[in-house]
Amino acid sequence: MNITMIFYFLGWILNTVAALMLLPISVALYYGEHSSVYFIACSLPLFLAGWLLTRKRPKKTKFYAKEGFLITALSWLLLSVTGCLPFYISGEIPSFTNALFECISGFTTTGASILHDVEKMSRSMMFWRCFIQWIGGMGILVFMLAVIPLTGGQDLYLMRAESPGPNVSKLVPKVRKTASYLYVIYFVLTAVECVCLIIAGLPVYDAVCTSFTTTSTGGFGVWNASLGAYSSTVQYVVAVFLFISGFNYNFYFFVWIGRLRDAFSIEEIKLYTGIFFAATAAIAVDIIRAGYPVEPGVRHAFLQVGSIMTTAGFSSADFDLWPSFSKTLLVLLMFVGGCAGSTCGGIKVSRILIYLKTVKKEIAHLCHPRNVKIIKIDDKPLPHDVLRSANIFLIVYGVIFVGSVLLVSVDELDLVTNFTAVASAVGNIGPGLSLVGPTCNFDVFSPFSKVVLMFDMLAGRLELFPMLMLLAPAAWRKQ
Amino acid sequence: MNITMIFYFLGWILNTVAALMLLPISVALYYGEHSSVYFIACSLPLFLAGWLLTRKRPKKTKFYAKEGFLITALSWLLLSVTGCLPFYISGEIPSFTNALFECISGFTTTGASILHDVEKMSRSMMFWRCFIQWIGGMGILVFMLAVIPLTGGQDLYLMRAESPGPNVSKLVPKVRKTASYLYVIYFVLTAVECVCLIIAGLPVYDAVCTSFTTTSTGGFGVWNASLGAYSSTVQYVVAVFLFISGFNYNFYFFVWIGRLRDAFSIEEIKLYTGIFFAATAAIAVDIIRAGYPVEPGVRHAFLQVGSIMTTAGFSSADFDLWPSFSKTLLVLLMFVGGCAGSTCGGIKVSRILIYLKTVKKEIAHLCHPRNVKIIKIDDKPLPHDVLRSANIFLIVYGVIFVGSVLLVSVDELDLVTNFTAVASAVGNIGPGLSLVGPTCNFDVFSPFSKVVLMFDMLAGRLELFPMLMLLAPAAWRKQ
Repeated sequence: MNITMIFYFLGWILNTVAALMLLPISVALYYGEHSSVYFIACSLPLFLAGWLLTRKRPKKTKFYAKEGFLITALSWLLLSVTGCLPFYISGEIPSFTNALFECISGFTTTGASILHDVEKMSRSMMFWRCFIQWIGGMGILVFMLAVIPLTGGQDLYLMRAESPGPNVSKLVPKVRKTASYLYVIYFVLTAVECVCLIIAGLPVYDAVCTSFTTTSTGGFGVWNASLGAYSSTVQYVVAVFLFISGFNYNFYFFVWIGRLRDAFSIEEIKLYTGIFFAATAAIAVDIIRAGYPVEPGVRHAFLQVGSIMTTAGFSSADFDLWPSFSKTLLVLLMFVGGCAGSTCGGIKVSRILIYLKTVKKEIAHLCHPRNVKIIKIDDKPLPHDVLRSANIFLIVYGVIFVGSVLLVSVDELDLVTNFTAVASAVGNIGPGLSLVGPTCNFDVFSPFSKVVLMFDMLAGRLELFPMLMLLAPAAWRKQ
Repeated sequence: MNITMIFYFLGWILNTVAALMLLPISVALYYGEHSSVYFIACSLPLFLAGWLLTRKRPKKTKFYAKEGFLITALSWLLLSVTGCLPFYISGEIPSFTNALFECISGFTTTGASILHDVEKMSRSMMFWRCFIQWIGGMGILVFMLAVIPLTGGQDLYLMRAESPGPNVSKLVPKVRKTASYLYVIYFVLTAVECVCLIIAGLPVYDAVCTSFTTTSTGGFGVWNASLGAYSSTVQYVVAVFLFISGFNYNFYFFVWIGRLRDAFSIEEIKLYTGIFFAATAAIAVDIIRAGYPVEPGVRHAFLQVGSIMTTAGFSSADFDLWPSFSKTLLVLLMFVGGCAGSTCGGIKVSRILIYLKTVKKEIAHLCHPRNVKIIKIDDKPLPHDVLRSANIFLIVYGVIFVGSVLLVSVDELDLVTNFTAVASAVGNIGPGLSLVGPTCNFDVFSPFSKVVLMFDMLAGRLELFPMLMLLAPAAWRKQ
């Protein structure tokens, strides 16, 4: 195991976090908030520690998949612990567990909060809270790969461990270039949304924060009422950007290089769009039948499906009060999630596509055992490895889900709370139902359950395996 | 497609049902109940129809897996429709949908009931209700294979389609002999329990009915209070027989032929026993902490774990009132189920074992990609096909579960009701929680939802694929 390389990477994480804190420092200075002191007090020691660790480039830079997973998991843990410091030392979140929970919920783009009153937060702290969602959305390692020339050629292991989806698809052969392109697309999406929101009437501060948490599909809001505080025009803008943030980024890359036909023939995006609008229509009909007027009914259905399916987790209405059918559909969408290769959590539409095709193939196989059928996606045969890993993903998802629900249920809250809280954490969504519904928050859980949910959020964000590896003795054993 | 052979089989199903009705007829005559008339009125036409269909043995007896699945699915549908006739025409269950629901719940050994007052039923009708669970437990086709010389040599297709578990394990090379052995073991277990229950003080009628529904892990009770109507001694006896009814029948066969070492080294049974007693201990602690005295606490925990994990679904206490941790654990056990090769429903412990080993292997593989590890069960390498089909089973379980919850939620009952009702139906358990809790019943659902749940019960009993094939156009297409 290449321990020195692991420490070298962790050093760069510290440097990066320290550098990222320059943004909230500027915001604090601009608004004349004294919280700038806390950010500086965190940033300097982090930079110092990072500098010490990265002073000397290791001689042996080669590492393997195992180290890739461990680096990823440890990076995210370090990221969370250091990222929560400003919340904690400023006293804006007085409990360390809660500060860590809020920070992990941020970086993993979950958006579940333990805050009872977000409006009490200082503007710079709120900015940091939204900004970490933006960084977490595309990934800190992807960010580092794009910016810092780190390794000889094993970047793919990191990218694979951090990027969502059954199959890491490099846009271009070079990992570093791919990482840069991804961040460019991400930045452009965010900037365009920000401009649209300003045109729709939002103050610049709100527009920036909301764009951060929309395109990262994170879901933190600046107001207690989340998106309920904004006009219906703003809500429509956010809903549209949520929808397109759920796309596989391959789509944007194809558009960028002019391969429009390829862009519009991605099967995953077709299925995503189909599920998205079918669910929106079904929920709209259900809640309008239950008493909503037509326009707000359609809007809330659109926004809530976008918010849950892309695993952002904004709320514009208290959907915990909606009829059972709509609630059930939203809970199911929590498991689906957005496209692979997007910033969304959940199982991902591409895996759902693989599962559905597997079932279809199996039935055909049972009917005609001699006909050999091959599963194809986007007209390309699916490699056996991807199929296998999608199956294993489902099993591991189940194991983590079941274990977590059981551990969390020790708090003796109701079943719907426990079930949807875990679904929401593993899927990186945000709100659940009942006691963790849109108007409530995750502070109802005991510190123990919060730790379980933090693990779930990280596991969900990193597609399960890096966090599992951290716990597996086999990963730490010398070979 | 061998249509004549399908009809020939269905004819034998009719004959068998007609013959089985002789038992409740005797019971009715013994107790002097006029319901004998209704049974005779059903039995005679069924026999006539059956005789017409089976008069001529088809010339071409050969058939394939596809027909095997279709025969199984159609047989169970026919079984359900004909088996419910006595309930319906006697007026003891006035609605046909409800009669069919009760009958499917019986044959599939689910034990979910739409009856508000089971004690109003005549003794012969109640006997029939319990007897169909016994027949359904081991399977009607297995019964026919054991008794009637039907086919040339394609029995395995039927046995495979009807028997639970990822891998049909023939006890002996001949399918027909295997079927007979299974029924002998099943009969002995039932008889021993019956004797024990009589010694424990139950009247013969109650003892017979309860043994039928214990060893079949069906769970229909003779009294409204289910097992709550009986002494604690009787409850312990039932709990023990539930526990051992969850064993893979290979265990009993090994004991029978004196291979004790093989019997006690079956990995699935070890895991089953481990989960069983860990869950019992955890729930006992939880409910004793919540206020139960120690003895009833342990007894109810033991009985309820046995009842839910073996998917029988008896109740001795209203576990819907238990603390959240215990309820969560019971809901999770609904998915686990008993061993493959038993009369239990659910995903089956052997598949859980496969899933856990898959995860372990995957982590080892990620740590050391070059080491090739093979999954072994009972020291034998697991064939790739079994592994593949276990994965696909999980996917199909998920698809059917999700689809059903969504369809059922149109009734706008609460989430816990919908979720546990479907879990209970697909897992062939019986009660769920909330509105389908142990003191409630499934009559709360609309006829549409009842049909969905009927499909789920049959799909769960037949391990998903036969019922799916029935709906797949590919299965009906001529090749």
